Amino acid sequence: MTYRPPVRDMSFALNEIAGLKELCGSKAFPDLEPDLIEQVLEESGRMAGDLLAPLNWTGDQQGSQLGADGVKAPDGFADAYKQWFEAGWCSIPGDVNYGGQGLPLSLAVAVQEYINQANMAFGLCPMLSQGAVESLTQHGSDELRDKYLPKLLSGEWTGSMNLTEPQAGSDVGALKAKAEPVGDGTYKIKGTKIYITWGDHDMAENIIHLVLARLPDAPEGTKGVSLFLVPKFFVNDDGSLGDRNDVKCIGLEKKLGIHASPTCVMAYGEEEGAIGWLIGEENKGMRCMFTMMNNARLNVGMQGVGIAERAYQQALDYAMERKQGKAFTPYTDKPDGMSPIIDHPDVRRMLLTMKAMTEATRGICYANAVALDLEHNGEDEDKRKWGQGRAALLTPISKGFSTDVGVDVASIGIQIHGGMGFIEETGAAQHLRDSRIAPIYEGTNGIQAIDLVSRKLTMDGGKVIADFLDEIDQTAKSCSASNDEKLVTIGRELSQANATLRETTDWLLEALKSEATDALGGATPYLKMIGTVAGGAYLAKGALAAHPKAGEDSYLAGRVEMAAFYATNILPQAAGLKAPATSGAAGLYALSTDLLTS
Amino acid sequence: MTYRPPVRDMSFALNEIAGLKELCGSKAFPDLEPDLIEQVLEESGRMAGDLLAPLNWTGDQQGSQLGADGVKAPDGFADAYKQWFEAGWCSIPGDVNYGGQGLPLSLAVAVQEYINQANMAFGLCPMLSQGAVESLTQHGSDELRDKYLPKLLSGEWTGSMNLTEPQAGSDVGALKAKAEPVGDGTYKIKGTKIYITWGDHDMAENIIHLVLARLPDAPEGTKGVSLFLVPKFFVNDDGSLGDRNDVKCIGLEKKLGIHASPTCVMAYGEEEGAIGWLIGEENKGMRCMFTMMNNARLNVGMQGVGIAERAYQQALDYAMERKQGKAFTPYTDKPDGMSPIIDHPDVRRMLLTMKAMTEATRGICYANAVALDLEHNGEDEDKRKWGQGRAALLTPISKGFSTDVGVDVASIGIQIHGGMGFIEETGAAQHLRDSRIAPIYEGTNGIQAIDLVSRKLTMDGGKVIADFLDEIDQTAKSCSASNDEKLVTIGRELSQANATLRETTDWLLEALKSEATDALGGATPYLKMIGTVAGGAYLAKGALAAHPKAGEDSYLAGRVEMAAFYATNILPQAAGLKAPATSGAAGLYALSTDLLTS
Repeated sequence: MTYRPPVRDMSFALNEIAGLKELCGSKAFPDLEPDLIEQVLEESGRMAGDLLAPLNWTGDQQGSQLGADGVKAPDGFADAYKQWFEAGWCSIPGDVNYGGQGLPLSLAVAVQEYINQANMAFGLCPMLSQGAVESLTQHGSDELRDKYLPKLLSGEWTGSMNLTEPQAGSDVGALKAKAEPVGDGTYKIKGTKIYITWGDHDMAENIIHLVLARLPDAPEGTKGVSLFLVPKFFVNDDGSLGDRNDVKCIGLEKKLGIHASPTCVMAYGEEEGAIGWLIGEENKGMRCMFTMMNNARLNVGMQGVGIAERAYQQALDYAMERKQGKAFTPYTDKPDGMSPIIDHPDVRRMLLTMKAMTEATRGICYANAVALDLEHNGEDEDKRKWGQGRAALLTPISKGFSTDVGVDVASIGIQIHGGMGFIEETGAAQHLRDSRIAPIYEGTNGIQAIDLVSRKLTMDGGKVIADFLDEIDQTAKSCSASNDEKLVTIGRELSQANATLRETTDWLLEALKSEATDALGGATPYLKMIGTVAGGAYLAKGALAAHPKAGEDSYLAGRVEMAAFYATNILPQAAGLKAPATSGAAGLYALSTDLLTS
Repeated sequence: MTYRPPVRDMSFALNEIAGLKELCGSKAFPDLEPDLIEQVLEESGRMAGDLLAPLNWTGDQQGSQLGADGVKAPDGFADAYKQWFEAGWCSIPGDVNYGGQGLPLSLAVAVQEYINQANMAFGLCPMLSQGAVESLTQHGSDELRDKYLPKLLSGEWTGSMNLTEPQAGSDVGALKAKAEPVGDGTYKIKGTKIYITWGDHDMAENIIHLVLARLPDAPEGTKGVSLFLVPKFFVNDDGSLGDRNDVKCIGLEKKLGIHASPTCVMAYGEEEGAIGWLIGEENKGMRCMFTMMNNARLNVGMQGVGIAERAYQQALDYAMERKQGKAFTPYTDKPDGMSPIIDHPDVRRMLLTMKAMTEATRGICYANAVALDLEHNGEDEDKRKWGQGRAALLTPISKGFSTDVGVDVASIGIQIHGGMGFIEETGAAQHLRDSRIAPIYEGTNGIQAIDLVSRKLTMDGGKVIADFLDEIDQTAKSCSASNDEKLVTIGRELSQANATLRETTDWLLEALKSEATDALGGATPYLKMIGTVAGGAYLAKGALAAHPKAGEDSYLAGRVEMAAFYATNILPQAAGLKAPATSGAAGLYALSTDLLTS
């Protein structure tokens, strides 16, 4: 189970596909240089490989455990976490006024991909903290920020997100946790939250819980939800830790995967009452929560990419070692004895599919991250507005498409291992088990698809999606204008796929005007379709960037080949999704519930 | 985790889609009557539900255990197995001369589907025995048959298949186990076999192992492999059990799923030597093995169907109970409070997809089973020849397509459960874990695809596949000729999809003539394509059969709706697979192995 940080792949995707290099020396990032980007990628990748990857399998086998003192992470995790945050990897995108490094979010997202590759269960802890940091930075009072941000940002303390209750999952507005004003500016929080990732653990001195609850007489539904900061230990004015707050983990879920990551049932205010501080305004908690969620959604997308990369590497290594049968092909050496299974065309197709899907989703997610950087730190209002729209459009695609791909790729990884893939010790199965949560949490992929169709397509009167489709056409045209046969093929396939995507988008936009159910019924196939086309477009962008030097650099030549494989094998499958995306909802309800049960 | 045997769905698929009812009263099955079919389906379904389904989750949690006395199945399994075989469910298709019931194999396949729905891990035991029965029936000497068949057939004894060795997985010919003639007609078997399903257990008094091994000086590869019968306990001439043979389980694998089914490392001849008897001729073991395998391949396909059915039922029940959000659709009652999630269009699409894919694969597998019945028991030579070709063509599709669908459907089942789906206690995750082995064993799905393209398409000069495609066109035409709008839609979509399938088939047949690697490189997408179209064709057949009475019987109306959903949502996705199926192999090898690792 070796792991190699794919530094060049990630650097290429960040700079040549997503355009991070264009932020170098910009007003917001005056110190950002190509060398610095490389250095961060090199060093964080090496550390993920040396420190976190070896704990992935042991962490899965041991799992986090709940004892009398709370939750204990698997052996080695606490020490690894300390080394990780002390190296500064948690504070990359943070506000410099609070000790952050003020570097682009997109660079932090790439570092998060390494963690996900090396140890996805571990990676959830800094990921959740990052959400808390963003929410506090944007919505917290100066007092709260001064007190909590520096240590949250550095990673010395961690954060948790407390939304879900048994009756309130996708329907956040159904939550019942209560918050009563004490009169001194604090609130007493009472309620039980479930599915709280890293809600308790022994890796940090303090945990800062962000909790959604309802004030007395708050309006029903999402309009009556407020966000509170509830520290595990109170923090004295001098920054030292005081008493324990009335919050604890009362149970851990036994899950299919991410065993090392504790999924806690958290009890607030079972005894004297948990004390919390309001973040943002009363009853405006959903806005603050979406700040956490949007960041988390992209990072969950990165889990899909990360687990796909890890599963690919493991399957590749196996396919090069394992020998079975003789592969007689014009493309490989004549076999002397049995061939490594990578020489068989069917296995080769599986590996290329894994790799191409991984690179495609990485392109989407990194482009999303750079768009977020432009939203927050673009040079002018136009750039920021563009970044805001593009990031909003890409977020459900990053989350939904990449996590579905993560599951598919992990499953192909098992298949390449044959019988060995089903044996837990091999480790291939862990990737599938771990990957399977990502399409569910931070808004199920169904919710992402609905968000995409009902809220994102309509943004700015349809201009955001139109711009995106125009950009894809532009990429296709640039490919078609090349004198390279492979690029011409890529251009043709991309142009065709995008034309069908455009028709489908138009259909959905029309449907939204008359009967939204018809559009919502096609949302999931549409998300897969746009993800497939967008992935092809980003790979095509990479091919265009690589092509001029492809003759001298076999790595760059490989980027053209990979884009060509995707264009000829995967892109043509997008068109078939037009039918389900535009079939309307009537057919979904034609069978009565009675008949479905018979 | 309730389970309802889907009696009517299975009866409909067997009789109306696969045509079992046409075998009633035929020469080979004079006593077969529609009432008898119903009775078998009703009673075996009820027993699977009452007896086997409750042991599915407990069996997963406890698993089979290896102790000093060998392997112990999970609590309740031995008793359930006894009740199951005593009820006669193992001997349905068996030779009447050996105590079998002489009923169609297709009826036995349906009963096997119940077991797979109720408890897939349990079902592997009678499934493996069935393979041993067929091999012994077709290739064993009278002496061996007289001695072993009656109790194997009844289920009192069980069978195991011993092919795989560490270096010999897909490449069976690489096996090294040895067989030395003793001189008295017996052989001493020596070697280690891995991945032996139910290779040892405490559910039956004796286990009859069928073992592939090499005679001294046997030719290399598959041409030097012979098949031996090696009983766990010797059988005296009076039928009583004698001494223990030198064969034992020396290890169990820790697996992703099917925990209740022991996956054994089997040691033959570690001490004095294991005594075995030759089945069939020396060095002709592959032929005998394929008899076991072909039967097993269809039954593994049924595991895909069975697990899909179970996952669907569980997701459906959850979707009707779980309430989240308000679904405002023109197709459901106006919500009073929160809606059951089945009312949301996206969840509805997931459920219909699960159901439609389950029914489509069931149609393929049952048609395969009836073709096998015709092969062995057709009225005349033409029928038998037709059955032989059709069964050979459908077997890799049944196995490959249905097991991939099983994994996909189980995964959708988790998704419908949201966060609950990832919690093991819910049981939805078990279905995914269990389902994941089926694309691997009995010939990986890659091997199935290669078999389909390189051996099955070329059968009888291409006539077998041509007949099949013609039959699909005929079905499409019958639909198109209807005055029912839904049937016309089904006919149009089926006809279009089949046209693309035909072009793709022709391309592959041409490629096989010039460069086989090009065809093999497209084998996996082709298998998915033909599976998708065949599934649609069988659902269309069902719709045609149901339509005349659909006005009076809402169940039958539902079959038309289901076929229409498949035709408009799933069938159009088949065309997109033409590109990868016909892209040739050069692109698969364009990236060197070096570049794949960078």
